[in-house]
Amino acid sequence: MSDFMELCLKRQSCRDFSDRRVEREKLTRCVEAARLAPSGCNAQPWSFVVVDDPKVVPEVAKCGQSMGINGFLSKAPAFFIVLEEQANLMPGLAKIVDSRYFVPGDLGAAVVHLCLEAASLDLGTCIIGMYDRPTLRALLSIPAEKNFGGYVAVGYPADAAVRPKVRKPIEQVVRYV
Amino acid sequence: MSDFMELCLKRQSCRDFSDRRVEREKLTRCVEAARLAPSGCNAQPWSFVVVDDPKVVPEVAKCGQSMGINGFLSKAPAFFIVLEEQANLMPGLAKIVDSRYFVPGDLGAAVVHLCLEAASLDLGTCIIGMYDRPTLRALLSIPAEKNFGGYVAVGYPADAAVRPKVRKPIEQVVRYV
Repeated sequence: MSDFMELCLKRQSCRDFSDRRVEREKLTRCVEAARLAPSGCNAQPWSFVVVDDPKVVPEVAKCGQSMGINGFLSKAPAFFIVLEEQANLMPGLAKIVDSRYFVPGDLGAAVVHLCLEAASLDLGTCIIGMYDRPTLRALLSIPAEKNFGGYVAVGYPADAAVRPKVRKPIEQVVRYV
Repeated sequence: MSDFMELCLKRQSCRDFSDRRVEREKLTRCVEAARLAPSGCNAQPWSFVVVDDPKVVPEVAKCGQSMGINGFLSKAPAFFIVLEEQANLMPGLAKIVDSRYFVPGDLGAAVVHLCLEAASLDLGTCIIGMYDRPTLRALLSIPAEKNFGGYVAVGYPADAAVRPKVRKPIEQVVRYV
């Protein structure tokens, strides 16, 4: 098994964080990895807000609990908020598709790079899909025209045990031609 | 630097493939890694067509050259075609967002997992954004209602040298709160 496959297995949603604070350097390294993700025309349509101020963290956590779930976020010591930035496509392409054509996939790639590097640093992450965007926008002074691209809780796991991955059998998802 | 960061630097768009065929086992391992990607509600909204039949490969290559570019695809010994599959969300969520809400980002994550595992196996990949979908659909007998999620050429690079990554400076894409 490759080191990368092992890392894929280690990267899992962490829903119980320890009290340990995350070193700022490690948070930055996750962003370093995220910005190495591929993107359409290398447009890099992303930016990152790293939230680790103990005064702000609980407010960000609340934004992820807006559906009355995710109580565990109250223990997360830090968050990555991913924002969408303008994608400048090659002129030939820009005539055919709109500038946001590749952006959702590009953001998905950047977010998973972020989480994989976190796992490699023994950090746990949880990608939250639903969150109170208007409140988060006001809290972090994010301009109205900017879209959110991801909300990721990060911290040291209370329990570092790797759970078995639940996936469809590979035979069900692959075909050879 | 973590092994993963090194892998991020090694993963690059390959636009010159050697004549060497890719072992079927390695192609399968790339799919194995892709299916370990995270997805909203663990819906795994993806499937993969691995094309390595020398009779079909040139036809798939042509689909990626429909804009009159990507001549290098003629040398690619194999392709991954990623398809979108139905995402079954948790009932609570399914009332709020449509079932495709998380899918584009999920597919982006799966495609980058595919490419990272390929890089770890010393394979080169190139993600192609624009391709002749109707022709590809007919060629691979893909049902009309199924969306494409990715088109990735794969093979051994003619030149394994790692090029420096061109990215915006990190200071430009990160903010700390």
